[in-house]
Amino acid sequence: MTKPLSVGVAGLGTVGAGVLTLLRDNAATVAARAGRPIAVTAVSARDRMRDRGVSIAGLRWYDDAAALANDPGVDVVVETIGGTEGPAADLVRAALAAGKPVVTANKALLAIHGAELAATAEAKGVALCFEAAVAGGIPAIKAVREGLAANDLTRVMGILNGTCNYILTQMRERGIEFAQALSEAQKLGYAEADPSFDVDGIDAAHKLAILAALAFGRPVDFAGVHVEGIRSISALDIKLAEELGYRIKLLGIARRTEAGIETRMHPCMVPVSHPIARVDGVFNAVVAEGDFVGRVVLEGRGAGAGPTASAVVADLIDIARGRTTPVWGVASAALSHAPSLPMSQRVGAYYLRLMVVDRPGVIADVTAALRDNAISLESMLQRGRAPGEAVPVVVTTHDCEESQMRAAIARIEALEAVVEKPAMIRIEAL
Amino acid sequence: MTKPLSVGVAGLGTVGAGVLTLLRDNAATVAARAGRPIAVTAVSARDRMRDRGVSIAGLRWYDDAAALANDPGVDVVVETIGGTEGPAADLVRAALAAGKPVVTANKALLAIHGAELAATAEAKGVALCFEAAVAGGIPAIKAVREGLAANDLTRVMGILNGTCNYILTQMRERGIEFAQALSEAQKLGYAEADPSFDVDGIDAAHKLAILAALAFGRPVDFAGVHVEGIRSISALDIKLAEELGYRIKLLGIARRTEAGIETRMHPCMVPVSHPIARVDGVFNAVVAEGDFVGRVVLEGRGAGAGPTASAVVADLIDIARGRTTPVWGVASAALSHAPSLPMSQRVGAYYLRLMVVDRPGVIADVTAALRDNAISLESMLQRGRAPGEAVPVVVTTHDCEESQMRAAIARIEALEAVVEKPAMIRIEAL
Repeated sequence: MTKPLSVGVAGLGTVGAGVLTLLRDNAATVAARAGRPIAVTAVSARDRMRDRGVSIAGLRWYDDAAALANDPGVDVVVETIGGTEGPAADLVRAALAAGKPVVTANKALLAIHGAELAATAEAKGVALCFEAAVAGGIPAIKAVREGLAANDLTRVMGILNGTCNYILTQMRERGIEFAQALSEAQKLGYAEADPSFDVDGIDAAHKLAILAALAFGRPVDFAGVHVEGIRSISALDIKLAEELGYRIKLLGIARRTEAGIETRMHPCMVPVSHPIARVDGVFNAVVAEGDFVGRVVLEGRGAGAGPTASAVVADLIDIARGRTTPVWGVASAALSHAPSLPMSQRVGAYYLRLMVVDRPGVIADVTAALRDNAISLESMLQRGRAPGEAVPVVVTTHDCEESQMRAAIARIEALEAVVEKPAMIRIEAL
Repeated sequence: MTKPLSVGVAGLGTVGAGVLTLLRDNAATVAARAGRPIAVTAVSARDRMRDRGVSIAGLRWYDDAAALANDPGVDVVVETIGGTEGPAADLVRAALAAGKPVVTANKALLAIHGAELAATAEAKGVALCFEAAVAGGIPAIKAVREGLAANDLTRVMGILNGTCNYILTQMRERGIEFAQALSEAQKLGYAEADPSFDVDGIDAAHKLAILAALAFGRPVDFAGVHVEGIRSISALDIKLAEELGYRIKLLGIARRTEAGIETRMHPCMVPVSHPIARVDGVFNAVVAEGDFVGRVVLEGRGAGAGPTASAVVADLIDIARGRTTPVWGVASAALSHAPSLPMSQRVGAYYLRLMVVDRPGVIADVTAALRDNAISLESMLQRGRAPGEAVPVVVTTHDCEESQMRAAIARIEALEAVVEKPAMIRIEAL
């Protein structure tokens, strides 16, 4: 057995403490898999005295995370601080500059600064690993970047935020509205006090940007991701989707077309028969489609101390074994420069649910707006009758371009008989 | 870009031809992912003249596969001949002896001779890769051996034979019997003329033996796998399972207990709510459960030229990049010697369906046989009434040991009023 791999862990929250726990509990298994022991020897966090449920006795302590990178006894730096700027970014830059491999669970940092950090890692010839940054314990990055590397991938998509998936599952199973589901999720600890990062789709979009970079071998481009969250989803739309044979999921989709790469995070209607429709609760899933392999679906826990630590330590084992891969799967000279496509060019079917005053002529006005934007109807359904009052009208369309649909919605929204902002949900052909 | 990796492919059936096709069609992607071009330069097969839909012009030809291993221009040998003895085994042994990495899709060879071949590979310091041998295009081996390497795995299981899963799916969806479903599958090319290898569970058991070796870091032990196929499954049992909330799947299960490793391949009843219950048709799935990661499910195509070539070339890319892993995940010195446990020690619930003459006292005899073997009933159901004629009686039990259940069945089978061999299906707690 060769010399242990000495690890410095910066950030001792849930994830960092989980890494310490795993490396102690499974020391023998990890050493066998890595070909050498892996041991934490130095740590950094804000508060040295806090009880984290795991002892840091005997470990070198750093108040300043970036200083840990320069500890000569540290071979590899694990960053679990979080955040796109400040100590996390300083630490990762310092470690790469010192020629030390970095393992991070920080999707925000990678989504925003990944292109720069990857270039530095390549220039320095050191590994920058982040299996834990996408879909937690699911080995999604390894699968996309190595397992499916022989394919020209056509699409990668996923349920990438457990909080949103839990909320949507509760709404569907119990017929409750978003506000109630969110408030319950907060009480259970599945959602933060400020839920915006999750429910507005930002966290999931960070992960999608990373997945897209891996799938299509190009530098991460978070600015190119179209992002919508789940606040506008209503119990009524979930129920109507069910009647139409769909489930509503917050899906991140990265798709290659002739013109470039679509990257979009928004609620979708997906056919109930597709495996991703049945991924419920806090579970995550990643679907990859390749020209030779067909469709591969990966499902598991996307968050939590255990799954995240599992992913961080898998990266450490790869480093210990000397198994390395360029950050985006290909060397910088081979990176693709396919552009990110604007959302207005998305082509697909749409679900539109209106609340209209039940009186003659309204449907004619709605269908005229669709016709004038060259949108072809797949179905139309008025639920119930209540002359003079508001009733739901549901329209599903054949494929059209997002720009056409937006123009039609603008006109429909302006109709006097349309009494609420129309609910539009994209139907994803899977 | 460094020198191309030169590949010799032996066996030009569906899989071998698929590898040639992929390496040509996706040459640029593969070169970028591998960091160097990967090119087939030599081939071997039985019939040089056969049309395989892919040109072999310009490639060095070998009538004798083993001779291809000694071609000084070949860096890596791909074996897609099949079979446990003869040319496939000779080739793999010759290549390893010559110090050349081997990629094989041959599960039978690995299940039977894997321990010996792995020892040779380690002694020679060369890679022996077989992602294509288990679950086709799903990167299951990489996931279990690298992606989840930080975990002490507790159980790995899977739907590992698409033919059986297709037949069981057809039986359930259309209420048809095994014989009809098999005959249709044969006409569609999903089953061989001699279907025994698939429907008797042997092919799937080969894959399970390999998965168990990877999951628990021990030499492959096919002799220790309990193997049953799906010939005895009836449409009636599939229907009754559905009523009880289960699906019947041919599942391979490898489980670690205090006493050793269970490895068993047999039809199981699994709860409809478990993701594996919904994996239908020719799809495969692998489920891994680890102490930190929890449950991870991988699903995709388990056979066919495209998915298998995807897996073979992923291995070639790993070899080109220098990413290597010991065959069973750990070096031989660290291999576990946990014994394979006999099936008689399996503990779990059971479904028993009897055809009994509808007359007083029969149920009392059946329940007495269970009681005398210390088996506790979970439910009992007699379907319909037909005095003096045979009716189905369904019993489900609480957990007991397989040996108890077998003793009870022997006694029940001997009852005069029991007119058919009892149908016993294990219920798997998932």
